[in-house]
Amino acid sequence: MELDHDQQVKQAVQSLTDRLENGQDDEFMTEFTALHDFEKGQVYAGFAENIREVAWRVMDDETLATVFDNLEIDPDEIVDLLQEMPPQKGANILMEMFADNEADLFQAMPSRLVATYLALMPNEEAQEIHSLIKYEEQTAGSLMATEYLAVQAGAKVKDVLAQVKKQAEEAESIIYVYVVDGQNRLVGIVSLRDLLTHPDEMTIESITNTRVISVKAGDDQKDVAQVVADYNFFSIPVTNDGQHLLGIITVDDIVDVIDEEAVEEYSGLAAVDVSDPDDSPWQSVLKRLPWLLALLVLGLVSTALVVAFEPTIRQAPILAAFIPLIAGTAGNAGTQSLALAVRRFGNGSDRSVGQALVAELIAAVTLAVIAGLLLAGIVYFWQGSRGLAVAVGLALAASILVASLLAHIVPAVLEKMKVDPAVVNGPLVQTVCDWLAILIYFAIAAGMLDGFVGK
Amino acid sequence: MELDHDQQVKQAVQSLTDRLENGQDDEFMTEFTALHDFEKGQVYAGFAENIREVAWRVMDDETLATVFDNLEIDPDEIVDLLQEMPPQKGANILMEMFADNEADLFQAMPSRLVATYLALMPNEEAQEIHSLIKYEEQTAGSLMATEYLAVQAGAKVKDVLAQVKKQAEEAESIIYVYVVDGQNRLVGIVSLRDLLTHPDEMTIESITNTRVISVKAGDDQKDVAQVVADYNFFSIPVTNDGQHLLGIITVDDIVDVIDEEAVEEYSGLAAVDVSDPDDSPWQSVLKRLPWLLALLVLGLVSTALVVAFEPTIRQAPILAAFIPLIAGTAGNAGTQSLALAVRRFGNGSDRSVGQALVAELIAAVTLAVIAGLLLAGIVYFWQGSRGLAVAVGLALAASILVASLLAHIVPAVLEKMKVDPAVVNGPLVQTVCDWLAILIYFAIAAGMLDGFVGK
Repeated sequence: MELDHDQQVKQAVQSLTDRLENGQDDEFMTEFTALHDFEKGQVYAGFAENIREVAWRVMDDETLATVFDNLEIDPDEIVDLLQEMPPQKGANILMEMFADNEADLFQAMPSRLVATYLALMPNEEAQEIHSLIKYEEQTAGSLMATEYLAVQAGAKVKDVLAQVKKQAEEAESIIYVYVVDGQNRLVGIVSLRDLLTHPDEMTIESITNTRVISVKAGDDQKDVAQVVADYNFFSIPVTNDGQHLLGIITVDDIVDVIDEEAVEEYSGLAAVDVSDPDDSPWQSVLKRLPWLLALLVLGLVSTALVVAFEPTIRQAPILAAFIPLIAGTAGNAGTQSLALAVRRFGNGSDRSVGQALVAELIAAVTLAVIAGLLLAGIVYFWQGSRGLAVAVGLALAASILVASLLAHIVPAVLEKMKVDPAVVNGPLVQTVCDWLAILIYFAIAAGMLDGFVGK
Repeated sequence: MELDHDQQVKQAVQSLTDRLENGQDDEFMTEFTALHDFEKGQVYAGFAENIREVAWRVMDDETLATVFDNLEIDPDEIVDLLQEMPPQKGANILMEMFADNEADLFQAMPSRLVATYLALMPNEEAQEIHSLIKYEEQTAGSLMATEYLAVQAGAKVKDVLAQVKKQAEEAESIIYVYVVDGQNRLVGIVSLRDLLTHPDEMTIESITNTRVISVKAGDDQKDVAQVVADYNFFSIPVTNDGQHLLGIITVDDIVDVIDEEAVEEYSGLAAVDVSDPDDSPWQSVLKRLPWLLALLVLGLVSTALVVAFEPTIRQAPILAAFIPLIAGTAGNAGTQSLALAVRRFGNGSDRSVGQALVAELIAAVTLAVIAGLLLAGIVYFWQGSRGLAVAVGLALAASILVASLLAHIVPAVLEKMKVDPAVVNGPLVQTVCDWLAILIYFAIAAGMLDGFVGK
């Protein structure tokens, strides 16, 4: 299905290019307008530069704003496309765009360019941009659109419906109408469904839902996504601390947030940014190399530890054989524990950090004891040495316990420090688990050496 | 914010429990109805069993259907709640529920119970259930609701608007109206926005968008989610191969799909199911233990390999020190490669499998050469042995190359076999990378032993 769609976009690019090359500007516009909004962005980005030079001259500002609202490429690249046009044209397009997308572009621009475009806009537009770009990334404020419909309590159904019709073209979507008091404080929500199914002369009080679920502009986007996902909302209002309505966040932006957060967590666990798996081999190398080399250098600590215990290995070379097993199993236990903790602390949990730690401790001890007993049993039957079996089993159990707790505590501490636990690097935790496991293993083995050397 | 909300739900449970215990049934209903739909589910599940025994008797079927539509617990547990009522009441609630949720519950029931409920429903309802539960899990068909509004081409704006108003109560959401021909084949879409902003007497032809994006009932839910996310749709129509309209999928279900798929990929990479991080310690142990023990047993292969090379280690004990480093780095390279490949093949890529493999080969060779040279350099300056440096560097490079390619090929093969690459277990791939790395390492080291033993 995806492939078909790419094919369709390519065909549209070709056909529209032909139109412009043959001077059929009107046919070009008719065909272009018939595209879905998302496709308009894809097709425009697919044009050759010399075709775009003609295309933006043929299109009106509103159509171009739709194009720029739907370009799913890096903001930097969108800004480049914008700069293919004269500054005033660019400013017009920015003003026609949805406020959240416009603010994103301003945030991607060098300050020189920000100044250029703002100088070409009316003062009130510049004010609005200013009020939007002040929100930190990954907060509700940075996601919010200012195109929504707010009415005063006391309005009649028919008047609100008339306003809905008038604003339907501009707003991202009118599914809810927001009811505010004289100070623009959010007091309730009316659904379009209720507007349509109630008498024209009724005042909206009786169909206003005053149990409004809203978010604050500074709230983390992850928490906002959770609320929207739980409640199955199409959009959610954003207020400041004084309950003044600032904007709305629509579910399509929430879909992007959920995807972005998931990619972030997955990238952390894999020690590589997976947000664009269609990178060129060189881009792919650049993303993988830093962590791979950093982990390699950190891994040398494990080597140095084993070197330090060389006398022990000389006495019992069999010990060397269990190094990868014990380090690897500690790493596996640490990875499991890390993944659970990142999900727990990152996505909101009913438990306190203390409760979670006690639960993890119980689980880790249980896992450690079972795995340690299993390995000790296997080693006893395989190598016939009770001393070796006890040393190896004990080392494994201790390693699993330490690795699990470490991998649990790191994300908990980050969350307390208001850092997203998703940044924790899985293989880095594994590497530290390796160090600890090797230390624990040789400390135990060296201490018990008399129990199995020469047996 | 999340905590506040949990607090609110607890308060509502308490207050509503008090109402019922004091016999204030009317006040109970008023308070309960004022809750958001999502909260109705949470609150009902929060009641003690003896309170639910009274609550379902006080509530009408429609309210209970909303409760059951919004229970965000395991389908098994929802079925248990349903069985607290007499079969006929249960059947009534099922019929009032949205078709997709109803079908999910039927799929979770033992066949005895399916027969009980179906026997209490009119034949046509039973037919509809039958037609819905035939779709495989994780397909568009399994997600789709059958509550949508379809009109024939040629209808007038005012007539369609009248139908919208009439059906607004039943349908999940009316944002689009679907236009079908005489054989119920989907021919276009009209947005509610356009209905509201065009004259009553106009026929809908002129505002019908005939470039419909739809999905097939058998399409993978991941692909459906991708389309909805790309196009920013609120819902998407589902058809069969003959373009007959079967149902719609709304964006709130897509939000759940994206979350579910992300959890699946993350769980695979961590070798533990992270879908419910608030498990009790025992549940947590049960989820972690199988993979931890399986990986432990498989890790014994690494131990056996090292044991087999014991004569080599006896000659050069320093070799043991590099085992965790080489195995660990191969594992890290494999994890990075696996994560990229799972995202690439799982989420649709523009590249063919062959192109992707060539790209991975170029990247892997580059990474292998750089990491190998770095390690060889470090070992040369640290240990002063050119032979050891060459052996260790070469072994690392070969291990990285093999691990990267293996971790890339496994998900590619799964995708070709129509198995979701997300099932690949990260630590399992790491364990296999360990085996290969140890084999490669000792094969190279044993072959070059004369170059560094005794130096």
